[in-house]
Amino acid sequence: MHWQFSARAEQLQSSAIREILKITMRPEIISFAGGLPSPLTFPVERMRAAYDKVLSRDGKVALQYGPSDGYAPLRAWIADSLSGEGARILPEQVLMLSGSQQGLDLLGKVLVDEGSRVLVETPSYLGALQAFSLYRPEFISVETDENGLLPDAVAKVGKGARLLYSLPNFQNPTGRTMPLERRLALVEICARLGLPLVEDNPYGALSYHGEPLPRMLNMNTQGVIYMGSFSKVLTPGIRLGYVVAPEHLIRKLEQARQAADLHTSQITQMVVHEVVKDGFLDEHVPTIRTLYAAQCQCMLDALEQYFPASASWTRPQGGMFIWVTLPKHIDSMTLLDAAVEQGVAFVPGAPFYANTPETNTLRLSFVTVPPEKIREGVATLGRLIAERM
Amino acid sequence: MHWQFSARAEQLQSSAIREILKITMRPEIISFAGGLPSPLTFPVERMRAAYDKVLSRDGKVALQYGPSDGYAPLRAWIADSLSGEGARILPEQVLMLSGSQQGLDLLGKVLVDEGSRVLVETPSYLGALQAFSLYRPEFISVETDENGLLPDAVAKVGKGARLLYSLPNFQNPTGRTMPLERRLALVEICARLGLPLVEDNPYGALSYHGEPLPRMLNMNTQGVIYMGSFSKVLTPGIRLGYVVAPEHLIRKLEQARQAADLHTSQITQMVVHEVVKDGFLDEHVPTIRTLYAAQCQCMLDALEQYFPASASWTRPQGGMFIWVTLPKHIDSMTLLDAAVEQGVAFVPGAPFYANTPETNTLRLSFVTVPPEKIREGVATLGRLIAERM
Repeated sequence: MHWQFSARAEQLQSSAIREILKITMRPEIISFAGGLPSPLTFPVERMRAAYDKVLSRDGKVALQYGPSDGYAPLRAWIADSLSGEGARILPEQVLMLSGSQQGLDLLGKVLVDEGSRVLVETPSYLGALQAFSLYRPEFISVETDENGLLPDAVAKVGKGARLLYSLPNFQNPTGRTMPLERRLALVEICARLGLPLVEDNPYGALSYHGEPLPRMLNMNTQGVIYMGSFSKVLTPGIRLGYVVAPEHLIRKLEQARQAADLHTSQITQMVVHEVVKDGFLDEHVPTIRTLYAAQCQCMLDALEQYFPASASWTRPQGGMFIWVTLPKHIDSMTLLDAAVEQGVAFVPGAPFYANTPETNTLRLSFVTVPPEKIREGVATLGRLIAERM
Repeated sequence: MHWQFSARAEQLQSSAIREILKITMRPEIISFAGGLPSPLTFPVERMRAAYDKVLSRDGKVALQYGPSDGYAPLRAWIADSLSGEGARILPEQVLMLSGSQQGLDLLGKVLVDEGSRVLVETPSYLGALQAFSLYRPEFISVETDENGLLPDAVAKVGKGARLLYSLPNFQNPTGRTMPLERRLALVEICARLGLPLVEDNPYGALSYHGEPLPRMLNMNTQGVIYMGSFSKVLTPGIRLGYVVAPEHLIRKLEQARQAADLHTSQITQMVVHEVVKDGFLDEHVPTIRTLYAAQCQCMLDALEQYFPASASWTRPQGGMFIWVTLPKHIDSMTLLDAAVEQGVAFVPGAPFYANTPETNTLRLSFVTVPPEKIREGVATLGRLIAERM
């Protein structure tokens, strides 16, 4: 007997990406599909030492239930590291999460009613679309160009919407970055409309050339909901992220979070605090940037060499993804079938669109596959695309 | 400016228990309020060794993203340890969670629409009421007696409801246990009605006298949704639990889980598997039982000595809680105010009722406070109650 599911569950589909990932876990596959950070960047020995130290020193605290809002010293460290450019972030504005994806679910829960208008980039992060969709909003896919969201387009449709979801740095899936003047315009427009501006920033630290652009959070701490993560700068398997927002929202998110799963693992937070508190990320993150920048360049070179002139792609200044646009008539979903048969995987672009998909797009990750395999995989894709021209 | 919250968020209140816990974190307070396991029972050194081993051996896997359904060897271990009494549980029926509280949120998300009827015990676990309430059901508070749910009462109101939530072993908050014949009757009635029967069992292993009664899961693996936890038998701060259900529901819960927070910490699962795989719990859990049984007896003796004859309380055969019923006119919420002033805390009974509360009830936890403090705290409460007679 099958039980009756809720209406929201009936419409729920499995993540296309995670289903593909299951196939592409096979080691013989060259997978550009995953958003997995390179394990070469995991500071295993430092983590091991930190677990050892925390458990030796504070084992009974680390293994006990903890507060819903998170481990206070880590919240203070985050608030401090985000403060600057004239903005002071308070620890009370920080809620620890079991990965920043959890923040998307909580924001949907707390801000979205059935039929509420939710504004997203075109295309947008698939995991955000999935998280919000459980709360059954009306998605508004806001117009973008190569620099991301068009502020005028937001101004036109933003009134009365519940939130605008943006990924300003090295966006997933496109890899593009929003310039400073556009950030300023967006913050101004959202403040004027009373529209909560979500700034999701998992990749911000992975800037290949100099410091990333200023956070929108710091331009208006009372108008922006900022999400950060340790997944891309430390390790993802521990599941640790955070949301920063005006206190009235943080308290509500914290209540929803109590009901959802009480709190984030206490030992995880204590260990990460132990690892980061003395500036480790300042020396560690540049090594990730160097690795990813080289692999990005390798893929860009291979695309230049193997892809037809009628295809185009982004040239990211950081992060983990390149976005490819093929000639209109090539459907990347059927291309994927052929590619997997040839031992190469990627994520088709369609699931990243909240409304009308551009089916001739695809996302390539360059961070987990070594350079010679990047060249081999791109060459295979180029051949398959050429066959379809 | 305050942003507009969703209707579900507007009605959301902070957990009374967690708010009280904040007050009672002060070390001078004798707190019977928390549901915190005794840190004396945490196998700190064994956990430390397991983190060390997992990170030394498989660091890069432990720190990478993992599958949404969980770490396969741990799922297999759980399936194996729950199989028996003629029932075979498959690993495919197990979904790992970041604490079993997360299962309640996911069940609400997947099974409950606004206005759906959700059946709960009277009284019931506060955290379940909170988790489900976010999905705005109509709670039906099912009649109970000293042996828990009345099967006839379930039969009367169960048709068309979305789920029945039960805690058959050493229930939170009452400490009571459902006898075997009642479990059998309940399983039979729920199967007949097509009503999903949730068996939440965080305390089952903490039976003071011999083995706990058979799980309802094993009476009908296709009719019961079972939730288990490592919080009470190992440590809570790592946040690790699981749900076992028919596969069609598990797949749907897994999809919801992907959207909510991707997956449970990979390293946590690998470490717990390392700790439990060779039978550690078989030797460890009896030491927890012995400690809690002694503290329970200490509290029962103190209640006998210090509480008036017109108060009554449960005599749990396991678990962490005693439930006290005071004379009708004494409101335990105002009693709490007076008690905290005298340095003693507990949880008033009212928040555990889905509908009409019995305001003369309260929950006492006996596991985190040492025996001499149990006597002192109960004596204080007894005096305050006597003053109100």
